[in-house]
Amino acid sequence: MESVIFVGNKAPIKYATAIVTEFEKGPSEVMVKARGRSISTAVDACQISMNKFLEGVEVKDIKIFTEELEDRNVSAIEILLGKVGES
Amino acid sequence: MESVIFVGNKAPIKYATAIVTEFEKGPSEVMVKARGRSISTAVDACQISMNKFLEGVEVKDIKIFTEELEDRNVSAIEILLGKVGES
Repeated sequence: MESVIFVGNKAPIKYATAIVTEFEKGPSEVMVKARGRSISTAVDACQISMNKFLEGVEVKDIKIFTEELEDRNVSAIEILLGKVGES
Repeated sequence: MESVIFVGNKAPIKYATAIVTEFEKGPSEVMVKARGRSISTAVDACQISMNKFLEGVEVKDIKIFTEELEDRNVSAIEILLGKVGES
């Protein structure tokens, strides 16, 4: 099962620590998802978690797409972080 | 030579049309770059350009990284858009 962190309007460090906590549970991959203005926060959170806290974790894949909500479309991102050497 | 669009603080549609204009010059790929809060705008601009204006253009690659400025670090993104079937 994939571990997922949904990024919202809090500070990037909040999500960075959530990513770290998730990896401490043992999964080889953690998916980070965000929409709209939170996309920047998601990128920040991933970079902070990798630069400051996590050893041997890299970006495995990044996807951008458009989600169709009821009243509007919103851009979204999915950043897959994973342990180096494991797919 | 690579075509590059730098995304800043304007509305996403401004950069979407810049991407379209760049492709109309003939390159098979256009690189879209942004830092900090403009990362969300860059994703929006790419999605708008592909959904509304460009036929046969897809995301070829996305990189996220940290740029070290004089007084702080900032997250950055590079989104490579390219014509389908051409690398």
